[in-house]
Amino acid sequence: MANAVSPLAPKSVPDMPAISGVRLATAAAGIRYPGRTDVLLALFAPGTTAAGVFTRSKCPSAPVEWCRAHLKPGKARALVVNSGNANAFTGKSGRAATKLTAALAAKAAGCPATQVFLASTGVIGEPLDARKFGPVMSGLAARAAAGGFHGAAKAIMTTDTFPKVATATARIGKTRVTINGIAKGAGMIAPDMATMLSFIFTDAPIAAPALQRILNDTVTDTFNAVTIDGDTSTSDTLMAFATGAAAARGAPRISKPGDPRLRGFRKAFATVLADLAEQIARDGEGARKLVEIEVEGAVSKISARRIAMSIANSPLVKTAIAGEDANWGRVVMAVGKAGEPANRDKLSIWFGGIRVAHRGMRDPAYDEAKVSARMKQPKISLKVQLGMGRGRDRVLTCDLTKEYVAINGDYRS
Amino acid sequence: MANAVSPLAPKSVPDMPAISGVRLATAAAGIRYPGRTDVLLALFAPGTTAAGVFTRSKCPSAPVEWCRAHLKPGKARALVVNSGNANAFTGKSGRAATKLTAALAAKAAGCPATQVFLASTGVIGEPLDARKFGPVMSGLAARAAAGGFHGAAKAIMTTDTFPKVATATARIGKTRVTINGIAKGAGMIAPDMATMLSFIFTDAPIAAPALQRILNDTVTDTFNAVTIDGDTSTSDTLMAFATGAAAARGAPRISKPGDPRLRGFRKAFATVLADLAEQIARDGEGARKLVEIEVEGAVSKISARRIAMSIANSPLVKTAIAGEDANWGRVVMAVGKAGEPANRDKLSIWFGGIRVAHRGMRDPAYDEAKVSARMKQPKISLKVQLGMGRGRDRVLTCDLTKEYVAINGDYRS
Repeated sequence: MANAVSPLAPKSVPDMPAISGVRLATAAAGIRYPGRTDVLLALFAPGTTAAGVFTRSKCPSAPVEWCRAHLKPGKARALVVNSGNANAFTGKSGRAATKLTAALAAKAAGCPATQVFLASTGVIGEPLDARKFGPVMSGLAARAAAGGFHGAAKAIMTTDTFPKVATATARIGKTRVTINGIAKGAGMIAPDMATMLSFIFTDAPIAAPALQRILNDTVTDTFNAVTIDGDTSTSDTLMAFATGAAAARGAPRISKPGDPRLRGFRKAFATVLADLAEQIARDGEGARKLVEIEVEGAVSKISARRIAMSIANSPLVKTAIAGEDANWGRVVMAVGKAGEPANRDKLSIWFGGIRVAHRGMRDPAYDEAKVSARMKQPKISLKVQLGMGRGRDRVLTCDLTKEYVAINGDYRS
Repeated sequence: MANAVSPLAPKSVPDMPAISGVRLATAAAGIRYPGRTDVLLALFAPGTTAAGVFTRSKCPSAPVEWCRAHLKPGKARALVVNSGNANAFTGKSGRAATKLTAALAAKAAGCPATQVFLASTGVIGEPLDARKFGPVMSGLAARAAAGGFHGAAKAIMTTDTFPKVATATARIGKTRVTINGIAKGAGMIAPDMATMLSFIFTDAPIAAPALQRILNDTVTDTFNAVTIDGDTSTSDTLMAFATGAAAARGAPRISKPGDPRLRGFRKAFATVLADLAEQIARDGEGARKLVEIEVEGAVSKISARRIAMSIANSPLVKTAIAGEDANWGRVVMAVGKAGEPANRDKLSIWFGGIRVAHRGMRDPAYDEAKVSARMKQPKISLKVQLGMGRGRDRVLTCDLTKEYVAINGDYRS
């Protein structure tokens, strides 16, 4: 837990403005370690809409089931997130824990329990004692205040080495709205979807179905385009909350996802999600290199994504990059095992912008010393041209280091 | 390359009897390292039948393409295997290298080039200079002699820490026949199929189509049930050669795969393949634990296989086992991400025969100290009961250690 900050952490952290209609507070409920901040309460103004995307695991956590069950009306008044215990694979007691947590938060927030959303991260399979939220809940609600996003991002960390925040603004009509996001990684990150927990907050007045559609549209090329180790959590949760407070400043209320007045908002929203997703890759467990994989010339975008993910999840590619070795033979292997249309004799591969293989053979002009120098950089770009069609895609990952093994070899003990 | 022998290596190595009709020789052709034994020539008596199963990679190596192109008639007189260079992703020059190698061997063996089979293992993407086989080929053919299977297994090693051999006998009619096998691993091992190179030799008189069918039937639960890192080589090759020499001692010639006289042979054949496959798992790069994963109660065998492989390939499960941690939460995660029918509330999990989770919850009787003691063993059994149906399967893998990262982080340099 006391790992040094990732060398890939962003060099600067943005100021996070307050979002009108969002109040935050954190506390130490003693979920796993005494005295450690491990619970976040977010309170939302009446009228806040909600949207969510969750893990596709067949064994989802109890909080994921809770959120899914209550998302339909699209109304949110509170969000409770805890770290230290994922409340996953906890059976009936897990369901009871979600019910109790929501009831406690509903009482503190003065809203129905069905408008409370929940997320938990940490150890799987240990019962979560939700009674521990009792003593801290009313204090959390009383302290909840505008701002505090950095502290919120910190409260939801597990093996993350730095808190992840991002912010952007956009105009809807003539009114400026703000979008803030927080996220946590850092292992067990794979589509779909590629984060354990992320929450986006905005004061834009957007109806829940439209917000849901924007979230769905945006997740594919942001969170779902990141993988650390190919492992998908039981708890992956991405939720967006729109308080609508900007309506009081003249922002028009938007109900259709295709509304042209959302163009700027969509772009800013995507920027925030992409920023958070990249930070997750930058904080992959043990990561020393951020790896961007571009696949071009596939038969379709979906095919390009599968090939990119096959490369990104290959332990042999990832360990080669950890060793600063432009081992394009392993890239060929990963392309080949993806099972997608590919032809060895049309395949070209670039590391760090230098073409190392061309049309099924080692590039005759390939200078290993030059490529080796590029491989020492903290960010490695890897491009594959398949020469089959026009499908292209891009995913982010990190290298596989001894530190990943060390972190995960004694995480629980 | 100079890694210490895997602590999981078999404690005893079997004597390998000669197979009538098979002659072997090895040499140092200087393919990659001067003075290192790196080429194996096997010569087969006239009438030898052949069968093969190859990588499903979309970017197969040149030798794989050569073997596929010439397998149909099912006749083999020679096999040339080299280590040090995989002759994969070598384009036209790779095809020319296979042609030249086969021609050299055909001349030495006195057979058509189309009856020469080839396999190469080692670095991908570097041109293979097949002319290096020229000076050694006639010497190889002259020296080729009965026996020598241990040396043959050694000649085809790359990062393997021990040579892999297995042998068994069976009766066909009243005549005893012998089955010998050699194999190499050790990384880039995943279905389909789960070895880089393995060759099986027998004196049984079995027609090529029947031999092919037996090979296909046997590979599913042997080589294809082993994974090291989920990475599939471009060069995976499993071939079987039946000289038929036992016919001279009275063995009946068999042409149908379903012939009841093959019952004992099939069993012995499966024993040899299973033994070699397990040795590959025991020599997984950096492996310190052999892991047997049993999945029961799936909706089908195929579903059980997918779930077992999802567990076996999960970096988080593998690192937990490296850390001697019975982290069944990660097993739940891996079951969940497999995408196969599963129900959290019906799921039970055992480590080392001790039930740690039962029907969606931590087993109340679960004693962590007892399980921890089992996790210190070199062989870890992990069982999952899904409670959905009657589908079951078993796969073998190994743990993911810092040594795996070290081996693969500077293999090429």
